[in-house]
Amino acid sequence: MHEPSNVRIEHDAFGPIEIPADRYWGAQTQRALGVFEIGEERFPSSLIRAFGLQKLAAARANRRLGALDRILAAAIEAAAREVWEGRFDDHFPLRVWQTGSGTQTNMNANEVIANRANESLGQPLGSRRPIHPNDHVNCSQSSNDSFPTVMHLCTGLELRDRLLPALAWLRDTLAAKAAEFDDVVKIGRTHLMDAVPMTVGQAFGAFASQIGHGIERIEATAPRLYRLAQGGTAVGSGLNAPVGFDQAFCDEVVALSGLPVVPNPCKFEGMGAHDALIEVSGSLNVLAASLIKIANDIRLLGSGPRCGLGELVIPDDGLSSSIMPGKRNPTIAEALVQAAFQVMGNHATISAAGASGTFELNVAKPVLIHNLLQSIRLLADGSYVFAGKLVRDLAVDRDRLAENVSKALLLATVLNPILGYDCVATITRKAMAEGLTPRAAAIALGVMTGEQYDRIVDPAAMTTPKTPEDR
Amino acid sequence: MHEPSNVRIEHDAFGPIEIPADRYWGAQTQRALGVFEIGEERFPSSLIRAFGLQKLAAARANRRLGALDRILAAAIEAAAREVWEGRFDDHFPLRVWQTGSGTQTNMNANEVIANRANESLGQPLGSRRPIHPNDHVNCSQSSNDSFPTVMHLCTGLELRDRLLPALAWLRDTLAAKAAEFDDVVKIGRTHLMDAVPMTVGQAFGAFASQIGHGIERIEATAPRLYRLAQGGTAVGSGLNAPVGFDQAFCDEVVALSGLPVVPNPCKFEGMGAHDALIEVSGSLNVLAASLIKIANDIRLLGSGPRCGLGELVIPDDGLSSSIMPGKRNPTIAEALVQAAFQVMGNHATISAAGASGTFELNVAKPVLIHNLLQSIRLLADGSYVFAGKLVRDLAVDRDRLAENVSKALLLATVLNPILGYDCVATITRKAMAEGLTPRAAAIALGVMTGEQYDRIVDPAAMTTPKTPEDR
Amino acid sequence: MHEPSNVRIEHDAFGPIEIPADRYWGAQTQRALGVFEIGEERFPSSLIRAFGLQKLAAARANRRLGALDRILAAAIEAAAREVWEGRFDDHFPLRVWQTGSGTQTNMNANEVIANRANESLGQPLGSRRPIHPNDHVNCSQSSNDSFPTVMHLCTGLELRDRLLPALAWLRDTLAAKAAEFDDVVKIGRTHLMDAVPMTVGQAFGAFASQIGHGIERIEATAPRLYRLAQGGTAVGSGLNAPVGFDQAFCDEVVALSGLPVVPNPCKFEGMGAHDALIEVSGSLNVLAASLIKIANDIRLLGSGPRCGLGELVIPDDGLSSSIMPGKRNPTIAEALVQAAFQVMGNHATISAAGASGTFELNVAKPVLIHNLLQSIRLLADGSYVFAGKLVRDLAVDRDRLAENVSKALLLATVLNPILGYDCVATITRKAMAEGLTPRAAAIALGVMTGEQYDRIVDPAAMTTPKTPEDR
Amino acid sequence: MHEPSNVRIEHDAFGPIEIPADRYWGAQTQRALGVFEIGEERFPSSLIRAFGLQKLAAARANRRLGALDRILAAAIEAAAREVWEGRFDDHFPLRVWQTGSGTQTNMNANEVIANRANESLGQPLGSRRPIHPNDHVNCSQSSNDSFPTVMHLCTGLELRDRLLPALAWLRDTLAAKAAEFDDVVKIGRTHLMDAVPMTVGQAFGAFASQIGHGIERIEATAPRLYRLAQGGTAVGSGLNAPVGFDQAFCDEVVALSGLPVVPNPCKFEGMGAHDALIEVSGSLNVLAASLIKIANDIRLLGSGPRCGLGELVIPDDGLSSSIMPGKRNPTIAEALVQAAFQVMGNHATISAAGASGTFELNVAKPVLIHNLLQSIRLLADGSYVFAGKLVRDLAVDRDRLAENVSKALLLATVLNPILGYDCVATITRKAMAEGLTPRAAAIALGVMTGEQYDRIVDPAAMTTPKTPEDR
Repeated sequence: MHEPSNVRIEHDAFGPIEIPADRYWGAQTQRALGVFEIGEERFPSSLIRAFGLQKLAAARANRRLGALDRILAAAIEAAAREVWEGRFDDHFPLRVWQTGSGTQTNMNANEVIANRANESLGQPLGSRRPIHPNDHVNCSQSSNDSFPTVMHLCTGLELRDRLLPALAWLRDTLAAKAAEFDDVVKIGRTHLMDAVPMTVGQAFGAFASQIGHGIERIEATAPRLYRLAQGGTAVGSGLNAPVGFDQAFCDEVVALSGLPVVPNPCKFEGMGAHDALIEVSGSLNVLAASLIKIANDIRLLGSGPRCGLGELVIPDDGLSSSIMPGKRNPTIAEALVQAAFQVMGNHATISAAGASGTFELNVAKPVLIHNLLQSIRLLADGSYVFAGKLVRDLAVDRDRLAENVSKALLLATVLNPILGYDCVATITRKAMAEGLTPRAAAIALGVMTGEQYDRIVDPAAMTTPKTPEDR
Repeated sequence: MHEPSNVRIEHDAFGPIEIPADRYWGAQTQRALGVFEIGEERFPSSLIRAFGLQKLAAARANRRLGALDRILAAAIEAAAREVWEGRFDDHFPLRVWQTGSGTQTNMNANEVIANRANESLGQPLGSRRPIHPNDHVNCSQSSNDSFPTVMHLCTGLELRDRLLPALAWLRDTLAAKAAEFDDVVKIGRTHLMDAVPMTVGQAFGAFASQIGHGIERIEATAPRLYRLAQGGTAVGSGLNAPVGFDQAFCDEVVALSGLPVVPNPCKFEGMGAHDALIEVSGSLNVLAASLIKIANDIRLLGSGPRCGLGELVIPDDGLSSSIMPGKRNPTIAEALVQAAFQVMGNHATISAAGASGTFELNVAKPVLIHNLLQSIRLLADGSYVFAGKLVRDLAVDRDRLAENVSKALLLATVLNPILGYDCVATITRKAMAEGLTPRAAAIALGVMTGEQYDRIVDPAAMTTPKTPEDR
Repeated sequence: MHEPSNVRIEHDAFGPIEIPADRYWGAQTQRALGVFEIGEERFPSSLIRAFGLQKLAAARANRRLGALDRILAAAIEAAAREVWEGRFDDHFPLRVWQTGSGTQTNMNANEVIANRANESLGQPLGSRRPIHPNDHVNCSQSSNDSFPTVMHLCTGLELRDRLLPALAWLRDTLAAKAAEFDDVVKIGRTHLMDAVPMTVGQAFGAFASQIGHGIERIEATAPRLYRLAQGGTAVGSGLNAPVGFDQAFCDEVVALSGLPVVPNPCKFEGMGAHDALIEVSGSLNVLAASLIKIANDIRLLGSGPRCGLGELVIPDDGLSSSIMPGKRNPTIAEALVQAAFQVMGNHATISAAGASGTFELNVAKPVLIHNLLQSIRLLADGSYVFAGKLVRDLAVDRDRLAENVSKALLLATVLNPILGYDCVATITRKAMAEGLTPRAAAIALGVMTGEQYDRIVDPAAMTTPKTPEDR
Repeated sequence: MHEPSNVRIEHDAFGPIEIPADRYWGAQTQRALGVFEIGEERFPSSLIRAFGLQKLAAARANRRLGALDRILAAAIEAAAREVWEGRFDDHFPLRVWQTGSGTQTNMNANEVIANRANESLGQPLGSRRPIHPNDHVNCSQSSNDSFPTVMHLCTGLELRDRLLPALAWLRDTLAAKAAEFDDVVKIGRTHLMDAVPMTVGQAFGAFASQIGHGIERIEATAPRLYRLAQGGTAVGSGLNAPVGFDQAFCDEVVALSGLPVVPNPCKFEGMGAHDALIEVSGSLNVLAASLIKIANDIRLLGSGPRCGLGELVIPDDGLSSSIMPGKRNPTIAEALVQAAFQVMGNHATISAAGASGTFELNVAKPVLIHNLLQSIRLLADGSYVFAGKLVRDLAVDRDRLAENVSKALLLATVLNPILGYDCVATITRKAMAEGLTPRAAAIALGVMTGEQYDRIVDPAAMTTPKTPEDR
């Protein structure tokens, strides 16, 4: 298939195999490419790069504990650092759909780093010496502890560096709108039906509160997320790892990345199950629900422009309908809601994958982390676009808002403490039946004068609690 | 439909309606019974009783803040306390499938308490005076803040009083088995395939760790769960509630129940969304995944008795097959796994319900809380039965365990640091191909003597990490 | 626990056990009661009764094939028929959460029928003779083929007798509204934004079409649903069943119930997997999605009464808010949507349960069928209530509808074929920016006269396709 | 951002915009690129190409009905055909996360085809004349009917050309193994516990049956899948489409592709809801469950090699563990199961997206079709790899199989019709307690001689039903 000049031959325990000459991966990666011809999905760069961090920290820990020769360690560390920096993303060709331990991608990392490190020591690609992908790059490790460690690392990094800043910005953008619309009275709606007054600011305050709580929720998962399986090696017992490797590894990761990782006291748990990642996904699932609620409210309040609620004005995005010229749609809200649906479905995938472990290994790791990283990415990007291109430039239609408040029926609710529920029900039902304002109905029923009504029924004053004497 | 002597007539804003004479509910409940003829599911007693607590705390707060006459308040409080104690469960006939705010069940509570309180004041059922269900029992409240408050209260109580003790017992039972089997070596398995040795105790330690983390996870949801919407009234603004009602209410709940509740600073959030409850469900979803893993491992390890793995012996439950006399099955593990599937599906229902809110009200409250309470109940009961009737009496088959370890192939993995990966691969592949022990293969290949092999390859010693010099 | 006079002693292979004297269940049921103390959910009557049908058909087939003595068979048949008629529902005390094969409920049926049949032959309860629950009632059967057969039977009966008639009624009710509102022009809405005109009848026609397709979908599952596992006995091979038992059993079921059942040619499939039931659940899942769409549209179109879309008028259900007197809400639509959320979550449970089989038996049968029967019931009841108490009495607000059409912007879309997309975009954007009608904008831009505009832009005529020459 | 020489300026209703000079997309696509910076997922080629088919068929129908000039139509048809052939995949840069109608991708198609067609008529890219993307390429169409039509077309094509052949091959491969292992007796297992004998061929026959039924299930969705929304234009009414466009379009699609499409009699349904696609996803969800069952059984039966069940021998894939040299794992089965988890999660996404429509448009189309196409692709590729690289080369370990059968306990079940259930229970419980064969236990209990036992208890004969006289 390949021209002889374009390939090299590598060997592994199964014999020789041809590899494209300019690729740093090795025999096991190449074999895996031929086996797993399923789909097109590849791991995102964030996972590949986290493998660089993991191999770097492992080499440093091995060196520190005397498990790895200093010269070999140095070469491995330099190569691993390049992987961490993203320089070898193109040398990770495997798709997500592979063995459930992620072994082939771990071997891919071992092989790329071994080849790169050997190259730096003057050896050609494929020499497997002086640095061997299993004996040295993978020293004190197994795929079975390395891959879940990488799963936790890239999740932690993506949450810290991508999602949480996006959410903070969205929360702050919503809070800024809450302040901006603090004095704008609107009719509240329950069951989609007109209820009692509130402010537009209060509605946006609720949105901001949801996102703020969403941030809290993600942060609450940290104690479990930052417990790492590294050091468990093949089954969790730590066979072939030096005593203290787990702690030394975590120390290196803390120093290199700032992530507050610690060894999972029970490595068996961290390899056989992925409860900590299901938990993280659960926090994203809540966030998806929050964003659906927020996006739906905003697009419903912005519906129209002439035959909808029309209380909000959604900024023009420069896009239109292919048949209805000039039509403007809440496109960004729709993109966000779709991303949220994806996150909720991914949560189902992640939960099923997470529950499927048997004995000492969960073998649905690739699908689990693929979905989790996609969820993080979509929520982060979606939040940025939603905050920056929709929420920030939202405006209100004050005329429409005021008109709606003025004609609302249930303003009369404020009369309950004075007239009692049954009497107010008589007022509102009469108003409804006869097309009256509740004020007119109250007067017609003779329960109060217009002056009395106007003194009590003040929509703006109805937007906060009142002490009895203030009524 | 009813004999005249068996019914009374109550009135509400819609007119008169017949009610069974011995029932404490009123007109709105009776009307709702006729409207929502869907399914058979009713709220569990835990929700009904939490309504008693909520109405009791509300009445006390109202009295304290001067919103309710002291005599009326006292009568309401006494009646509400009876509901809290479960004495009126039979007077809550409505099914889950009702309006999405739970209004009919809130009205049911208002009506039962009003009737009971009026009765205590010498008035017949249905008199609606001196205590009116809306004006007095529901004083300073709406269904829209009361129902979500009750959702949080009964969830908190069920977690604290039912689920967490069950989980603690299960965790401790598993940990006791871990200690009991601390010295029993077994073959570890990854990808369902034989791997390297470990102890049975380590496997049970992982199970205990999963449940321990599960407890942590539930507890981590508390900050959001214990923020209550009470005080928001109709739309979240607190209309018709006195200033400070939210705090006063929470103070009463703390005093009455010990739950560490505080007012949600943003009532709008607590009524329009149920993110806090989706979060709780998410923690139960992780627990379901953990239990599936644990139950599956135990029943696989106990498979047989003669043609399976047979390493564990599952206690006899006295049940058998209807066709295969004497057959024993891991029935309790199966019941637990099925309950876990239910919890995972309930989580999907809860997430969809939670995402469906619009504007100031989520109107999928009944289905959400019904599923959440079912999940808690099933996990609690399932954990108790699993711990007490299966895990506690598990035994090991030491002969089978030892035999499996003795014939395992990959014990040779411990030779990696000495011989290198490629050499060990040659050993194991030869052993596999020729049906040899790895020891015989190593000797046949001339890489080491039997004495050298036996000194290094010690299964019991392979169950923990080793410092390089110890190897 | 029981007074001696209130209990009898039964024996099974495990020894003696006390049973309440007036109950027809036996030893295995009683033991199971003590083991599975989980939750409160019991199988619905439809499953219990289908067990009666199954045992009746099995006894008849056994008699026909000579596997069962005629006198014993006759006694069993009479007792089984009583179970089928629902007379022994109270003698099935077990909860859903039991062994995954449903063995305990099958034994419950065997025991009730044996006791009842022995009673009819003059023997006391618990005598186990002449009719033995396993040897005679369960003759030629195992739980492993009987329970899945019952799952299919009760599903088929519930679909045929409960759900499909409800859906037909809902479809017809929606179609009747489509006819009623055939001539009522409304503004169409896409992306929640005003689009081009259509009729209210067309909207209801789409709803009716969805339900009609939903009926088709359920019917399309029949070929797999009506293949029965009966005859497979313990593992699918038919051990201990006479040749031809499967066909004889199906013949009896057809004759007794009219269900068009046939033997599954591969009994192993029907016991180890429940794909056919996941498929049925999938059809219900689509229906749930349809109902959510329909209910949401109707409550959004009925939103208001004064600050919403207000194009539909939802009938008064006699229920109101606990704080906002006179407020009317689309309560039935909310109940329906909640039921649909349950169905979608149940589908997740069913799918997980269905995927969990191993080897010759799926052991998540009880949770699967419990969820499936609940889904059917909720959809059926929900459809009836929705059709009969909401859809049937829906009205339109013709003034509001006409006003919305009159002020809509994108009526100008009809000018595309004449003016071209870019020119029409100029018209609509000018109209939007300056608050004009598109007619005024078109005239102001000088692209056409008012007369030309009026001739072409006729909302009612815009609700169907036109041949080019008609434009 | 772009060098002047590398860009061209296009105009749309919003003004001028720079576009890379060598790209065929236009202004609306370019604007959308700047708006929707979310994630990395793009539509697969199958969707882009189906857009070519859709535009080709539309142009032909327009020409036939006189809605489009013949010369313009011919140029459009030629360009659309190139898109259908996949030559312009690189000119569709938009990500999945866009407006919920797919409008931007429809406009992308309109723009690419307009530019390509104008180019063929001697005009530079960006000239928008003589062929205008909206007026001519999109003639008689809207995104709102075109995008759902494309969703159905690419689903139909992918099912017919990719998934169904893969499934047929998998079914046939499984059936071939069933024939190959037809005479190999194995112990059956229920509840993971040893049961009665059967053949390995029967087990594979059940797998083949599951896949065969899976094919039936997909085919059963066709009546709804092949009803197309095309012709509905903006809201479903067909505004601006000539009478008969829907039928003419379908005729062209049938002629071009062979798909048996027909117009959906209710276009409104096909645009506002995507029930037909949820249904298709439901059929894939069942298939995922089937594949999980099959893959799990095969890897459990192949577990070992020495400490597992070891009845099957899974072919060597040339891959190994990174730490345990020579370890072989059922990697392909794991990849398949992970793909199946993805399909089940995608089904949740699709169901949520499908239920989210409002009024005349479902605006979650991109996420829905993205997930559906991924599910189809993963199942197809996974089935091919599983069939070709794992199932086809599976072998049995006849010694292990025979040994398991010989020591099984419940062979005695066959004695039920002779000895009765209770007596056989005594035999098996004695055998179990004392470590005997059931034969030895039966003799020791004096219920039969060895000769009698051997005549009746013949495992091979126990794998099918028997007529009473044959026993």
